[in-house]
Amino acid sequence: MRVYETICACATLPGTGAIAVIRVSGDDAIAIADKVVSLRNGRLADVASNSVRFGSVPGIDDVLVSIFRNPHSYTGEDSVEISCHASSYVIEQILFRLIENGARPAGPGEFTQRAFVNGKMDLSQAEAVADMIAAEDASAHRLALNQLKGGVSNEISEMRGKLLDMTSLMELELDFSEEDVEFADRSQLSSLLEEVSAHVKRLKESFRLGNALKNGVPVCIAGAANTGKSTLLNALLQEERAIVSPIAGTTRDSIEETFVIGGIRFRFIDTAGLRETDDTIESMGIERSMDKIAKADIVIAVADCQAASSDVQAQLSLIRERMNGSQNLVVFVNKVDMIPGAGLDPACSDDSGLLVAGPIESVIKETIPEGSPVIYGSAKNGLGTDDLKNILEKIQKDRVSSSRSGDTMVSNVRHYNALCSAWEALKLVRAGLDSGTSTELVARDLRDVLYHLGSITGEISTDEVLGNIFKKFCIGK
Amino acid sequence: MRVYETICACATLPGTGAIAVIRVSGDDAIAIADKVVSLRNGRLADVASNSVRFGSVPGIDDVLVSIFRNPHSYTGEDSVEISCHASSYVIEQILFRLIENGARPAGPGEFTQRAFVNGKMDLSQAEAVADMIAAEDASAHRLALNQLKGGVSNEISEMRGKLLDMTSLMELELDFSEEDVEFADRSQLSSLLEEVSAHVKRLKESFRLGNALKNGVPVCIAGAANTGKSTLLNALLQEERAIVSPIAGTTRDSIEETFVIGGIRFRFIDTAGLRETDDTIESMGIERSMDKIAKADIVIAVADCQAASSDVQAQLSLIRERMNGSQNLVVFVNKVDMIPGAGLDPACSDDSGLLVAGPIESVIKETIPEGSPVIYGSAKNGLGTDDLKNILEKIQKDRVSSSRSGDTMVSNVRHYNALCSAWEALKLVRAGLDSGTSTELVARDLRDVLYHLGSITGEISTDEVLGNIFKKFCIGK
Repeated sequence: MRVYETICACATLPGTGAIAVIRVSGDDAIAIADKVVSLRNGRLADVASNSVRFGSVPGIDDVLVSIFRNPHSYTGEDSVEISCHASSYVIEQILFRLIENGARPAGPGEFTQRAFVNGKMDLSQAEAVADMIAAEDASAHRLALNQLKGGVSNEISEMRGKLLDMTSLMELELDFSEEDVEFADRSQLSSLLEEVSAHVKRLKESFRLGNALKNGVPVCIAGAANTGKSTLLNALLQEERAIVSPIAGTTRDSIEETFVIGGIRFRFIDTAGLRETDDTIESMGIERSMDKIAKADIVIAVADCQAASSDVQAQLSLIRERMNGSQNLVVFVNKVDMIPGAGLDPACSDDSGLLVAGPIESVIKETIPEGSPVIYGSAKNGLGTDDLKNILEKIQKDRVSSSRSGDTMVSNVRHYNALCSAWEALKLVRAGLDSGTSTELVARDLRDVLYHLGSITGEISTDEVLGNIFKKFCIGK
Repeated sequence: MRVYETICACATLPGTGAIAVIRVSGDDAIAIADKVVSLRNGRLADVASNSVRFGSVPGIDDVLVSIFRNPHSYTGEDSVEISCHASSYVIEQILFRLIENGARPAGPGEFTQRAFVNGKMDLSQAEAVADMIAAEDASAHRLALNQLKGGVSNEISEMRGKLLDMTSLMELELDFSEEDVEFADRSQLSSLLEEVSAHVKRLKESFRLGNALKNGVPVCIAGAANTGKSTLLNALLQEERAIVSPIAGTTRDSIEETFVIGGIRFRFIDTAGLRETDDTIESMGIERSMDKIAKADIVIAVADCQAASSDVQAQLSLIRERMNGSQNLVVFVNKVDMIPGAGLDPACSDDSGLLVAGPIESVIKETIPEGSPVIYGSAKNGLGTDDLKNILEKIQKDRVSSSRSGDTMVSNVRHYNALCSAWEALKLVRAGLDSGTSTELVARDLRDVLYHLGSITGEISTDEVLGNIFKKFCIGK
C-alpha cells in the first residue's frame, strides 16, 4: 500500500473575500486537522464521512470543517476542507498550524495529480480540470466538461481495448512461433485497423476546431489600406464592450482582441493593408498579413465601396490565393454611407447597399467562392456589423456541426501530438500487414499505437509527462 | 413568522482558481438548490443537515453541496453551499440557474445582516466579521476575533442589563408618583452609575489603542531638515520589504508606509524638517508637521550627531511642546558613521555611539522626558535600526498592557461615538441625581444611556444604521 504525505493549500483565490477554503489531503489529513481544529464536542476522527461540522482554530477563527474519507473524496484519499474567513492573515495562520502538525504545502495541481494517481480520473480528465477553470465562454466550457466527463477518454480506451486484445493474441503467436499458428484473425485485424484509423483520423482532425473553441476562433480582417479594417474591429468590439477581453500573456500572436458572440469566443486579428508593392520592407509586412490569412478559420475581406472594381478584384484574388478549402470568407463592403443617397437606416440598408454597390457587386461575385456572404455596410456608423456578427456565429456553428467529430473534440495539444504519433504508427502496422511483414514487427508497431493512445489517458505515463502537466495547474487544485 | 427571500452569491473571490463556493440562504434555499443540483440518488431535501453530497449542475459542472438547516447555519436560515470549479463562466451559470429558479442576488453583507436579524450574532459581532476579513496582522486580527467572540457585546450588555433594571424601577415610581414611593434605591443607583461610568470611560479610552491596533500604530518621524528622517524610514522599510504595504485607499493621512513588527502594524509618517522660520509658507509646512506629531502615538525624533548641542536642544523642545503625556518619544541620534573613529560594527555600536555622542548626550537627557530611549546609529548603514524596531515593539506592547482596558478594546468609530454619547448622558444622570432633579428627567437621561449602549450591540437599531454598516461589506459575506 502506498503512503501519502498529507498536503495542504488554500483552494480559493488568495485575498480578502467572504470565505476561503483550505484543503488537506493524505493519510493523516483527519488526524492533523484534529490537532488544528477544535470541535464543540468530540473529534473529527469520530465524525461521519461527508459531514460538515462547526469548529474553531483556537485564537484564529471559527470554521466549518468537511470530512471526506478514502476513497470518497476528490483525491481518493482522506481529505478535510476547512472553510474560514477569507483574510490572508487567517489563511496563513491556519496553513501554518497544519504544517506545524505534519502537513506540507501542496505543489501546483497536486490534489488533482493525486486524484489521477489514485484512479479517480484519468490523465485527460485531469487536464480537463485546468481547461474547465480557464474556460470563459460556453463553447470552451462545453468542450472541457465533455473531456472531464470522460468524452475523450472513453473513445480512446475503447479503441485501445480492442487493439490490446488483438496485440495480445499476436504476441501469443510469437510464443508458439515454431508451430506456425495464427491466433489473431488477420482479416479481423485488418478491419479493426481500418476502424481505429478512421477514428484516430477523426479525432486528430477535430483538433483544429477544438482548439478554436478552446482558445477562440481565429478571424482575420484583411483588405487594402484605408478600407476601414480597424474601424470595423473597433465597431465590433465597442458593441461588445462588456465581454471584450484582451488575451493576457498569449504567446500565439501579436495582436488579438477577443469577444464572445452566441457563446463562441472569436479571436480577431487585424492585419496591415494589402497591396502589390516593390518595396521590400512593405512586402514583408504584407507577407505577414498573408500568413495570418492562411492561419485563420474565417477571413473577413474588407473592401471600400468607392474603390475601382479592378482594385477590389485584385485584393480579393490576393486573399483567396492564401486560403484553402477549409476556411470561410466573408466580404464586408464598407463605407456605403459615403455614397450620396445611400440610406443609413439599418432597416433599409440592404436596399440602399445593393443600390450603391451595383458597380462592384458582380466583380465580387465572380471572384469569391460560391456561397460566401457579402455584407454592405458602414463600420463607422455600425451599419451591417450586427449582420456580420450573426454571420460569424452561423459560420462557426456550421463548422462545428459539419465536422464529423460529434461531441468529442480534441482541444489539447498533447493529445493531438499523441494522436498524430498513433496515426503514424497505425500506417506502419497497415503497411506491414499489406506487405506480409513478420508478426514480430507488426506487433511492435501495434505496441507503439497502444503506447501513444495510452499516453492520452495516462495508462502510459512518465513522471516527466506528469510533472509537465501538473506544473501548469494552480496551487490548491 | 418572517418570510425570507432566498438570496445567492459567490462567497469566494471572483476569478480563476481551484474552487469557488456559492452560498444560498433563505426559506426556499434547499428547494431552489434541488432544482439546480442533481444528486446521484435522491434529493437535497432528504439529505441530513450538515452533510456534504456530490452532485452536478447538469451541463455545467460537478459540485459538492453542503446542507444547513435553520437555525444551525451562518444566517440562521436554511442554507446551501455549492462548491464548484472556480471558473467565472461556471460561477455565472450556476448563479443564473439559482436566480432562474427563484433566488435573487444577495446585496453586500446580506448573509451577515441576516445572521444579525436572526439573532445569530449582535451588531458589534457582525461588524467584527468585516474587521476580521480586513485584518492583516496579529494585533488587528486578535482585536477582531475578540469582538467577534462577543468581547465588546458582553461588556455592553452586562452594563445595559443592570441599568435597565434600575431604569424600570424608576419608571415604575412614575406610575405611582402620587404616592411618593422609591422602588429604585438611590444610593444603589448612584454606585451603579459610578461603576457604569468608569466602565464606559475605560472602553471609550481604549479606542485610541484599539484604533491604532486596527489601522496601525501612528509613528511620526520628526526632526530638523537633513537629519536623515527619510533615510531612516527607508532603512526600516527596506529590511521589512516582504511585509511592507502601502495603505490602499486610506483617507486618514497623506503619506504612510506601514509595516509589521512582532505582529503589530506600525503606520510611519514622515514629516517636513522642523526649524524656526519667518517664512509664511515654510511655517505652514512646519505647522503641519507639528500636527502630525500631536496625532502620533509614538514620535521618533531624529537628530544629527554632528549638529550643535543648542540646535538639537531647540529641536527636541519644539517636538516636546506638541506632545502630551500619553505619547512616547524615542530619540534616534543619526550619522554616527560620519564621526571619524566611530565603529560601524553593530556589536560595538553602543560604545562608539556613546563615545561620539558625548557632547550632545547630556543636552538630550536634559530635554527629553525621563526614561525615553535614545539610540545612536546610522540610518544609512542600518546601524541601530534593529534596536529601534525592538524599542518600537516594546513601547507598543507596554502601551497595550498598561492600558486598563484588559482584553476588550473598542476599535470601531461607530462604537466610540456611541460610547461618547452614552458618557455625556451619564454625566446628565449623575448631575440630575446630585441636584435632586425629578425622577422623570433622570429616567429620561437613563433611557438615553441605554439607547446609546444598545446601538452598539444592535439591541437598538434603525434601517439606516444597518444599511450604512452592511453596505461596506463585500457581496457573498
